[in-house]
Amino acid sequence: MSRNAREEAVLSAVRERRELVNAAIDEDLPPKRPERLYEASRYLLKAGGKRLRPAMLLLTAEALADVEAGDADYRAFPDLTGETVDVMSAAVSIEVIQSFTLIHDDIMDDDDLRRGVPAVHQEYDTETAILAGDTLYSKAFEIMMRTGAPPERGLGAMRTLAETCTHICEGQALDVDFETRDDVVPDEYMEMVELKTAVLYAAAASIPAIVLGADDDTVEALYEYGLRVGQAFQIHDDVLDLTQSSEELGKQRGSDLVENKKTVITLHARDQGVDVAGLLDATDPEDVTDDEIEDAVAELEAVGSIEYARDLAEDLVAEGKDHLDVLPDNEAHRRLEQVADYLIERTY
Amino acid sequence: MSRNAREEAVLSAVRERRELVNAAIDEDLPPKRPERLYEASRYLLKAGGKRLRPAMLLLTAEALADVEAGDADYRAFPDLTGETVDVMSAAVSIEVIQSFTLIHDDIMDDDDLRRGVPAVHQEYDTETAILAGDTLYSKAFEIMMRTGAPPERGLGAMRTLAETCTHICEGQALDVDFETRDDVVPDEYMEMVELKTAVLYAAAASIPAIVLGADDDTVEALYEYGLRVGQAFQIHDDVLDLTQSSEELGKQRGSDLVENKKTVITLHARDQGVDVAGLLDATDPEDVTDDEIEDAVAELEAVGSIEYARDLAEDLVAEGKDHLDVLPDNEAHRRLEQVADYLIERTY
Repeated sequence: MSRNAREEAVLSAVRERRELVNAAIDEDLPPKRPERLYEASRYLLKAGGKRLRPAMLLLTAEALADVEAGDADYRAFPDLTGETVDVMSAAVSIEVIQSFTLIHDDIMDDDDLRRGVPAVHQEYDTETAILAGDTLYSKAFEIMMRTGAPPERGLGAMRTLAETCTHICEGQALDVDFETRDDVVPDEYMEMVELKTAVLYAAAASIPAIVLGADDDTVEALYEYGLRVGQAFQIHDDVLDLTQSSEELGKQRGSDLVENKKTVITLHARDQGVDVAGLLDATDPEDVTDDEIEDAVAELEAVGSIEYARDLAEDLVAEGKDHLDVLPDNEAHRRLEQVADYLIERTY
Repeated sequence: MSRNAREEAVLSAVRERRELVNAAIDEDLPPKRPERLYEASRYLLKAGGKRLRPAMLLLTAEALADVEAGDADYRAFPDLTGETVDVMSAAVSIEVIQSFTLIHDDIMDDDDLRRGVPAVHQEYDTETAILAGDTLYSKAFEIMMRTGAPPERGLGAMRTLAETCTHICEGQALDVDFETRDDVVPDEYMEMVELKTAVLYAAAASIPAIVLGADDDTVEALYEYGLRVGQAFQIHDDVLDLTQSSEELGKQRGSDLVENKKTVITLHARDQGVDVAGLLDATDPEDVTDDEIEDAVAELEAVGSIEYARDLAEDLVAEGKDHLDVLPDNEAHRRLEQVADYLIERTY
């Protein structure tokens, strides 16, 4: 399949499931009293988002259950023992966790915009944003409890969810810590990316296996799939920041570089002897010109750092896809392979 | 038993369990990487605290299992079916949730001191405090998962924990909302206290019943016990703020009044025609004199508002204790009655 055809297949699969996920979010997290709290909690979820993680969760469930892709009732979904479970609840739960982390991260990183709208702490206030995130946090656990799976599996899903949240906090702490450190090594960066970003993909890919009653090896393989493609997703983000135009990015090209953010690219360049901190004079993305960015990127390209990151992301995706061997051969299985490819081919 | 003897019995029961709870917190939430994150997460827990809620949880377990009070191994505790469970994990989980809510509340309320030490966002910074709270949040769920109870009970405990956290967020949102409202009615205040404060006592009293395998009626009765004595606890706090000296309180007497906080006392006084907002000129606790507070309290006393609050707290405690009828008649049962009395007799 050509790259364009593949991208279209992935986007159409995600789109089909997105509508259903959006409707399910409204069902599982309805507006209620106190009104302002629930408005603020729902604000970012209503502002959009690709729903990549819930789509991955639903596709994994479809592949495992070997049902016609896109044809199943996710609320009464066939598990592997002839019973039905509500996998949509699990998908919503993962998206609610994602939303909670974005709300709190935006406060911590002092980011004012998210998904084209003011961040929650800007639209409301910091107090409300903290509380909205805290509310989504427990709601995600409540919603994960509604799969109707036998207690042992339900508890397994809750365990993965809780550990995932702890990891995300640890990853965010490492990320903040790295800002003031000059001796970060690539392995540490990869660990940070695993904890902060990849574990939620791993949860999205493995929780449906837990809920449907798959064996431990299958659960573990799908967790590894999510982990590797999640890491690749973040590395590709780092590449895009340098290689896409500001227009396509919706923010200043090279802003990671201006803000002295550590990425595999800058760590590789540093190890090649490049004075990464000296590549740009500006310390604010607003003070940098496109020509300056162009020159800095040329220097990173010259020492092979961007190529290095691209190769690394490709290796991670290949490794991730290998783990999909535990799935039956069906359409959803192929979509999950394509999703992995898409994560490092997307242009935004 | 005299009031003094009762207080001594309660304090000694809490004290005996506190040492074990403190050791268990260290076991279940050890320092680890990223170091600063876990230091900040453990900071408030290490700063002390009465451990009333975990003590209540352990006492409820002892009463239910009908074991010699204080003599049991809480990590291998007899359940109601001849197996053993780790009730200490559940006790630690509840205290960890309490700690998370205090850390985030202190950011939201801009309170600089807690338990005699700087609040976490003061000792570290706001970003770290948000993240420390988030870490404790998921850790509490992880720890609650370690009781070793059969999955159905484990999942039940997780459900109560998740719903409790949602309620606490809702209660905090109502409390913030009340600050700018003049039309709060007593029923709304009691609902806020139930959500913000009492549900965690209800969780502490009912979760051991879930974990030990008690029937639904017992679980529900113990939940009601916790709810009523938790409400009484908060109302007594409101009374203490007006009736104890600044020295005994460790903060300015009447600070709730200065800050125009709604309490059952001020709501009752307002309904008796008192201009509550006009009782004090100062709007900062530092600008008020003891004589001014004395006069304001005298006015509240004259219309019977403090007496009203005291009676209400007593009624709630009596109602709460009635629900303990589901427990066998033993020493731990009597301690739980005494704990309820103590919550509205304590002077700090």
